[in-house]
Amino acid sequence: MKRTADTGKVVALCGGIGGAKLVLGLDRVLPAGHLSVIVNTADDFEHLGLRISPDIDTVAYTLANLANPETGWGRRDETWSFMETLADLNGETWFQLGDRDLALHVERTRMLGQGQTLTEVTETLCERLGLASRLLPMSDETVSTVVETDRGSLDFQHYFVAERAEPVIRSIRFAGADTAKPSPAVIDALSSPELTCVVLAPSNPYLSLDPLLAIEGLREALAKCTAPIVAVSPIVGGDAVKGPTAKIMRELDVPVTSVSIAHHYGDLINGFIIDQCDAKVADEIEVPVRITETLMTSLESKTALAQAVLAFAEQLSSRAPHRGAA
Amino acid sequence: MKRTADTGKVVALCGGIGGAKLVLGLDRVLPAGHLSVIVNTADDFEHLGLRISPDIDTVAYTLANLANPETGWGRRDETWSFMETLADLNGETWFQLGDRDLALHVERTRMLGQGQTLTEVTETLCERLGLASRLLPMSDETVSTVVETDRGSLDFQHYFVAERAEPVIRSIRFAGADTAKPSPAVIDALSSPELTCVVLAPSNPYLSLDPLLAIEGLREALAKCTAPIVAVSPIVGGDAVKGPTAKIMRELDVPVTSVSIAHHYGDLINGFIIDQCDAKVADEIEVPVRITETLMTSLESKTALAQAVLAFAEQLSSRAPHRGAA
Repeated sequence: MKRTADTGKVVALCGGIGGAKLVLGLDRVLPAGHLSVIVNTADDFEHLGLRISPDIDTVAYTLANLANPETGWGRRDETWSFMETLADLNGETWFQLGDRDLALHVERTRMLGQGQTLTEVTETLCERLGLASRLLPMSDETVSTVVETDRGSLDFQHYFVAERAEPVIRSIRFAGADTAKPSPAVIDALSSPELTCVVLAPSNPYLSLDPLLAIEGLREALAKCTAPIVAVSPIVGGDAVKGPTAKIMRELDVPVTSVSIAHHYGDLINGFIIDQCDAKVADEIEVPVRITETLMTSLESKTALAQAVLAFAEQLSSRAPHRGAA
Repeated sequence: MKRTADTGKVVALCGGIGGAKLVLGLDRVLPAGHLSVIVNTADDFEHLGLRISPDIDTVAYTLANLANPETGWGRRDETWSFMETLADLNGETWFQLGDRDLALHVERTRMLGQGQTLTEVTETLCERLGLASRLLPMSDETVSTVVETDRGSLDFQHYFVAERAEPVIRSIRFAGADTAKPSPAVIDALSSPELTCVVLAPSNPYLSLDPLLAIEGLREALAKCTAPIVAVSPIVGGDAVKGPTAKIMRELDVPVTSVSIAHHYGDLINGFIIDQCDAKVADEIEVPVRITETLMTSLESKTALAQAVLAFAEQLSSRAPHRGAA
């Protein structure tokens, strides 16, 4: 399944569960060390004195084959003694932290407390988990997703976990994004001369990828990037595969179609991948489109989509000049 | 087993495992709210970013009937997923933290981070554990036991846990004790007009009780105290019941007898309780002595010793004037 070692470098941008599936496919088909994943950290928060990075953890656990396949978040073979005891102590239990999961948060918090950056901490932890790919937090500075809803202004985790994404979203903002810089490692990855493809994973564009794109330096680095940028639509047959993407699109008055997603990314992308059951809308999309199977229900379908993304990028790359190379 | 409600207030001074047994006896024989326990905090340390208070935890778990009867520290029915995973992440595993135990440390650390004092945090946590007695950290300021050994200067936990109390002790000091103040709650407990007895529990005098006595304000409050002060010897038949007390006495060139312990406390105490198998040394002790069974192998023997301590104090109290009442 591994490609040959002459494959160039690939960067994926992603959030949590949905994007992690494609990232797993890319990780498995690319040679070790060829994939860098820039991960949303605007969902990060401090809870019980611990620094939690939900999207980094989901991607890390997924790549380490430690993810809980039923929930999408947290670890498989988890135990819950900590949480049970915290409940007995009247502690806050709305955000579930398994006993094994906790070890990662405690180690992260400890290392951050020593003055290491989130990028450094993530590198060390991913090394300890034995990952072949690099996970790069989008920024070492704090950017926080805030949703304005019919129940008021909510922090992301309160909206998403405590309120189960039930409140009606009126608008979304990313506090701190106007001043935050991408980490040097992010800039390095996007400006590598070996870079052959940038993938916007099928994460929620509004909640998971927009925070990355809201950081001016990151958006600029993408615009300057010489490799083709390919996005994979999270919409299949007029609905989101998982999570609240479709619900949020309706609340934001956006038609729930892949066309809206392509339009949302606009001229940032050079190519767009949609599911075969949405083939009929391909003509409405302004960038080159690849139609394929995008549902990732097995490891095979994840690696197949990863291969399709890479092949599409290669094809876009040969159709010079694309925007980045202009 | 409960005494009548007209029993006055009792204060016990204690460290960890040995002292906690007598404290349990006192807790069970006294009416709810009549016992305050001033606990050594010089073994406290920060580990993995968490604030650990080993002696407070041992006493709290013992009184809450949650202690692990086999180890003396930690909780019964514990699970170890966190520690196993931390080992997988190459984290520090020399100090064992069970999944349930961890909940207490995380809550404590979180509350201290909010600016609460250790006294306030301990009160809240003990309330959540349903304790009938009050646990009072000896001070809200940092006092740290440091042992000078043949392997160099060691923090207490490194000496005691990581090095298993194997290094030969040359001297013991309590960093910060010269400036630390006892908490207001400690002073209140010791100056209560209802106080009928102060007990120095059979904890290690050198490592567990000396830190309390090294705080000038606490020692002064004891000296001013109007109730008799009774110490229970941790030495039975020329050896310590548990832990390194006898080993440390040999290293400090002190004969391993109850006489040495009485001499160590000097005129701080008004009465001294020794085990029946040490009856022969009673005459060598300058303060009034009560000879009884001091081995606490069952709840019955703990409550029996507690009753003996209280009866002895009552008897000392009626022999006015004792030093405190002068």
